[in-house]
Amino acid sequence: MDSIKIGMLGLGTVGKGAYKIIASNAEMIDRKVGSHLEFVKILVRDQNKDRGIDLDPNLLTTDPADILDDPSIDIVVEVLGGIHPAMDYSLKALASGKSLVTANKDMIAEYGKELFAAAETGGADLFFEGSVGGGIPIIRPLKNCLSANRIMEIMGIINGTTNYMLTKMTKEGSDYNQILREAQDKGYAEADPASDVEGYDAARKLAILASIAFNTRVTLNDVYIEGITRISAKDIEYARELNYTVKLLGIAKDTPEGIEVRVHPCFIPYSHPLASVNDVFNAIFVRGDAVGETMFYGRGAGEMPTGSAVAADIMDAARDKLRHTQGINCTCFDHKPLKPMGSIESKYYIRIMVQDKPGVLASIAYAFGDKDVSLASVLQKHTEGNMAEIVLVTHRVLEQNLQNAILMVEQLSSVGKVHNIIRVEGEL
Amino acid sequence: MDSIKIGMLGLGTVGKGAYKIIASNAEMIDRKVGSHLEFVKILVRDQNKDRGIDLDPNLLTTDPADILDDPSIDIVVEVLGGIHPAMDYSLKALASGKSLVTANKDMIAEYGKELFAAAETGGADLFFEGSVGGGIPIIRPLKNCLSANRIMEIMGIINGTTNYMLTKMTKEGSDYNQILREAQDKGYAEADPASDVEGYDAARKLAILASIAFNTRVTLNDVYIEGITRISAKDIEYARELNYTVKLLGIAKDTPEGIEVRVHPCFIPYSHPLASVNDVFNAIFVRGDAVGETMFYGRGAGEMPTGSAVAADIMDAARDKLRHTQGINCTCFDHKPLKPMGSIESKYYIRIMVQDKPGVLASIAYAFGDKDVSLASVLQKHTEGNMAEIVLVTHRVLEQNLQNAILMVEQLSSVGKVHNIIRVEGEL
Repeated sequence: MDSIKIGMLGLGTVGKGAYKIIASNAEMIDRKVGSHLEFVKILVRDQNKDRGIDLDPNLLTTDPADILDDPSIDIVVEVLGGIHPAMDYSLKALASGKSLVTANKDMIAEYGKELFAAAETGGADLFFEGSVGGGIPIIRPLKNCLSANRIMEIMGIINGTTNYMLTKMTKEGSDYNQILREAQDKGYAEADPASDVEGYDAARKLAILASIAFNTRVTLNDVYIEGITRISAKDIEYARELNYTVKLLGIAKDTPEGIEVRVHPCFIPYSHPLASVNDVFNAIFVRGDAVGETMFYGRGAGEMPTGSAVAADIMDAARDKLRHTQGINCTCFDHKPLKPMGSIESKYYIRIMVQDKPGVLASIAYAFGDKDVSLASVLQKHTEGNMAEIVLVTHRVLEQNLQNAILMVEQLSSVGKVHNIIRVEGEL
Repeated sequence: MDSIKIGMLGLGTVGKGAYKIIASNAEMIDRKVGSHLEFVKILVRDQNKDRGIDLDPNLLTTDPADILDDPSIDIVVEVLGGIHPAMDYSLKALASGKSLVTANKDMIAEYGKELFAAAETGGADLFFEGSVGGGIPIIRPLKNCLSANRIMEIMGIINGTTNYMLTKMTKEGSDYNQILREAQDKGYAEADPASDVEGYDAARKLAILASIAFNTRVTLNDVYIEGITRISAKDIEYARELNYTVKLLGIAKDTPEGIEVRVHPCFIPYSHPLASVNDVFNAIFVRGDAVGETMFYGRGAGEMPTGSAVAADIMDAARDKLRHTQGINCTCFDHKPLKPMGSIESKYYIRIMVQDKPGVLASIAYAFGDKDVSLASVLQKHTEGNMAEIVLVTHRVLEQNLQNAILMVEQLSSVGKVHNIIRVEGEL
């Protein structure tokens, strides 16, 4: 049987990972697929750069046409990242009937619809298991294994950088800026960390998961986003005192009033399966109407884990080519409305600096009561000078009511500053 | 488009679950599949029994030929359980080109090879996601998402009954027999609990997982099996003292000297991801050469969770029928030898009753040293009369050396009884 021919666009971390895995496990992989997987061209910027991997230099090209216009190429692997030129190349590959494997969350989260349409037209596969959770199987389990379920909820730790940072802050009691510098030194955070610490990376992944889980198109713009930049050592200390741990979660819910999709820091109880997911590990918790609670855990990034997902997608695309068939295409056949953020319900942790004098707590409690926010617990700590810190945890309330109460509290003359508001999730 | 026609053999717990899920989520499921899934016949023993589900009585039949000989039926769902007559019916269905969906671990663990051969001949699918881990996606993730990896190790809590019992014993300090009675009262354990508590159920599931993970046929007879019947409240108490928790694990490893497949109670450190998997939950930990550590968690049994897996398999089989293609068939193309149990390496916990007199510990320590078993820790407790209890934990040693040392210890005049030997696993 002829080999299955692969062209790869890019040879960065993920591309190298996929290449190495398919090279080192070639015999097993070829037996599983029923044909030889052969890389025939790899697009790079600089053909002479030393990449530290064993590679025939003739494989490298700087001209995308060597891949996109080669009719013998069956599968295009896009690992350039970013929207341009990845998107143009991907559309072109799909339109000409080449199956596309990508780990490009930016592109899938924003242009999944267009890419699926091109795959449909071209009769090709579009696989992107590596775009969420690195090596963790999650896209295919949602599309296949859990496909008979109405998925009600997804809660995920889907950004390794911030989970590493929050874990370190929790273990060491250190503050955000110190830990960020350490993470940057170790290569776990980028020099410009915004995409991770401000929640955009997680939001892209959540949009992809929600689209598949709820059968409705969710894009990056639909996701409410808060990052971890305001989390302080104090918040983490109070969390511990209240038996919670702090995690940056992507949360997606399918409710009768619409879809909730939000990325923000959360307090979750120690007993929740996600609470013990530490360091750079990711985990995605999925609740379905039939299956109940499931969770998928593993390494959410890196050369070999993400390479593992890309290599598996290549194998599946190859099998489909050999069988002249196609995998599951777009399943966003519904058009579910987005639920406005003010309509979500949650418990909230609120940390407020106030003047340490009689009547302050009463006036704060009055403001919450006035806006229909009932309080579950109150901690008051004397801090410095004539200021005291008050920590409140609410019962489950409407976000809009909470925000109204906070506005009212901020008007109180005895209130110095509302330092932080963090949602409390995952209580079973 | 015509509907996809399903015949189901059996309407017990799992069959009812699959039927209910496909009925209640019909609209979504049909859109995903691209055709209507229609149950046309269901084999039962008694057509008049009240099953508490909404079902057209004309669907029921007591004659298997109404399903197996009906050429219009595309997919046969086998949920009878046991080997006979499930195996005959399944072979017949596959041979005539009907795809087979089953959750029957007994049949797959013993006759997977024969069933795959029949599927190949008939050009049909053979899917069995529900046979391991109930609703947890694990078979398809291994066959697809992780397929580029050389899987090195699987460690799983794959029997809910024993995990429930061990969790209760740990939380309450109660003894085995009391907890077994409670589990039986609650319906978590069968009247005859042997298959669960003696480890056979877990062993069947492990054989299935190992066959897929290592690409070599592993059957029930290949699995070394110890159940939980000898675990006492004392063992659990000592485990806690040593920072371990007790779990019944299925462990499969692919080593240069052959395949290890074993089911037995283990001490695992609290920090291991499997340690916090409690009650009836299952979890399967998989280590691959590229992906590193992954874990899959969820409800390992029950009408709706296992029904979820069966319903998803039906959907995949239906898609394949519509596309005139087949899913992944047998991948056991290797013939790896089994590693003899004496050649495995582990740490061991050993609890021994001895005479409380000078020199006893020295003679025991001598016996272990003589057989090349080095000790990591020793606890000695005075218990009753002139007898004392000694608890030893070894370093990593050869099983054969450990067994030789135990034989030697049992000969010592000062040793009353070796109460228990439990392997210590999962230290990273």
